[in-house]
Amino acid sequence: MKLASLRHGRDGRLCVVSRDLKTMLPVDALCPTLQMALDSWSTMAPKLQERYDALNAGTAEGAIAYDPGKLHAPLPRAYQWCDGSAYLNHVELVRKARNAVMPPEFLHDPLMYQGGSDDFLPPTAAIEVADESYGIDFEGEVAAITGDVPMGASSAEAAKHIRLLMLVNDVSLRNLIPGELAKGFGFFHGKPSTAFAPVAVTPDELGAAWKDNKVHRPLVTHLNGKLFGQPEAGADMQFSLADLIAHAAKTRRLRAGCIVGSGTVSNRDASKGFSCLAEIRMIETIADGKPKTPFMKFGDRVQMDMTGTDGQSIFGKIDQTVVKYTGPQHL
Amino acid sequence: MKLASLRHGRDGRLCVVSRDLKTMLPVDALCPTLQMALDSWSTMAPKLQERYDALNAGTAEGAIAYDPGKLHAPLPRAYQWCDGSAYLNHVELVRKARNAVMPPEFLHDPLMYQGGSDDFLPPTAAIEVADESYGIDFEGEVAAITGDVPMGASSAEAAKHIRLLMLVNDVSLRNLIPGELAKGFGFFHGKPSTAFAPVAVTPDELGAAWKDNKVHRPLVTHLNGKLFGQPEAGADMQFSLADLIAHAAKTRRLRAGCIVGSGTVSNRDASKGFSCLAEIRMIETIADGKPKTPFMKFGDRVQMDMTGTDGQSIFGKIDQTVVKYTGPQHL
Repeated sequence: MKLASLRHGRDGRLCVVSRDLKTMLPVDALCPTLQMALDSWSTMAPKLQERYDALNAGTAEGAIAYDPGKLHAPLPRAYQWCDGSAYLNHVELVRKARNAVMPPEFLHDPLMYQGGSDDFLPPTAAIEVADESYGIDFEGEVAAITGDVPMGASSAEAAKHIRLLMLVNDVSLRNLIPGELAKGFGFFHGKPSTAFAPVAVTPDELGAAWKDNKVHRPLVTHLNGKLFGQPEAGADMQFSLADLIAHAAKTRRLRAGCIVGSGTVSNRDASKGFSCLAEIRMIETIADGKPKTPFMKFGDRVQMDMTGTDGQSIFGKIDQTVVKYTGPQHL
Repeated sequence: MKLASLRHGRDGRLCVVSRDLKTMLPVDALCPTLQMALDSWSTMAPKLQERYDALNAGTAEGAIAYDPGKLHAPLPRAYQWCDGSAYLNHVELVRKARNAVMPPEFLHDPLMYQGGSDDFLPPTAAIEVADESYGIDFEGEVAAITGDVPMGASSAEAAKHIRLLMLVNDVSLRNLIPGELAKGFGFFHGKPSTAFAPVAVTPDELGAAWKDNKVHRPLVTHLNGKLFGQPEAGADMQFSLADLIAHAAKTRRLRAGCIVGSGTVSNRDASKGFSCLAEIRMIETIADGKPKTPFMKFGDRVQMDMTGTDGQSIFGKIDQTVVKYTGPQHL
């Protein structure tokens, strides 16, 4: 099943999207929003599946053409967004670039930060930043939306609560991060609003590409129209999405609609390219003592997509351009 | 105006509470939930105020007796919870206990962490923890609920978007925090579900005690029935709630219903007592080389309250007991 939210109000209008991303069908008369569907998943999912099947069969009344410009993030706002860092190659590179080694406990204890979730960006929304000097970067990730997860759930238990999968652009302001992390309380200014591909999908939509609670397809990123990376999201992932959900639930329940991210997709094989600028800059720093690739400038465009073996986009595209924020600025 | 949420479903049922906390009036026919009121505050607030006035005048039909056991947190779940650390005495003590000094930039750059907001605790709910060895602590704080705040808002602009004030118990698992912060990504396991006093109030309810975007009343904490602290929430607060909101909005918008906390209320005058166990343990460590007061054990009870000059409770009480969590535990 593929679900999306038409831009409307604060929470969007729920629609199902055809498997081939050609048509979409508003279903808000059945269930107004995706959050409401997640809140009552066991009763709503079968009803949504019926509409989805009818849409794919071409028998749904009221279907309209798929238009990502009309879509918001699947959850325009959410009650929780926690982002892991499961691709340890990314973590190792960060450390290596500053002549440090990754602590061995990182192999079994995932990094995870609590992100802001009140204001997600639509897949084609501009990335508004006040100042280029913040070091504007993208981070391509996969993420799961959970149902209710009990405190202390194991990874196997957590896997049962994965409802939907998404693609993420975890926008990062790199030059604000070192000072912020040095304060000791984690990310805040360095992680502004996060963007999502337009379509959230149930794991069965991935077929054989969903295995061991990982998404086994390349995440393809283009920067200003040029291929930037296509690392395998299923490779070099130390912690599965279920592992990350279990980690998040160690000392508290997670409630329906919680989003858990994988961290930047990154392969040890650098020929696959990258899912963020920081990583190529680290490779350059390790090689030449300093980075060559700049962070994003106003006007730069990033696109992210993931296709099935049939070449069909699974989640629809993230397609964002950085623009200067011209609102009030006192800091 | 005083608002609360009757326990019901995931988001509660909105009610207004009389100024003297004697009666409450469900108003969900007018507006089902507090989040929905915040989403449309300019149109909803005047209508809610009418009901509130009628309730206080004794002319409201359908009023029922105030019963905190029937109430959830004002927002049972929220789209954002960011918690500052505005009482620098607390920060200085933490550092001093480990022979470190507070960096001077902390005087103008607030500490703030992003908290989980999908599963808040009702004011009288048990604090369920799997293991006493986690170092169970309470943290008494004040917090603001905001409307929509533009990115880059100044403190003066942020002040205009303060909708409601609350009391918080920012439950903390102290022994999990050092290892977690050492990983560099901030709090996660160390900050389980947060609890709130039952009643959220508009700032005008505080009268003269609301000044300079600070709450000028003592926060009174009892531990197992014994007075533990009554520091002045308006004293020694380096950053006002408006300052903290502006800090949170530096690189992104905040959307309606965002909760911004003050951090643990703490006065330089130690005779006022404390709002968390960590602080008295730091005082003990500085004096004797080690802490004497233990963290909370299963069965321990914490109560927090704040009264007006008339002795009337403003927000209702937080009244929680720690119990052993007996659900699934794999970690």
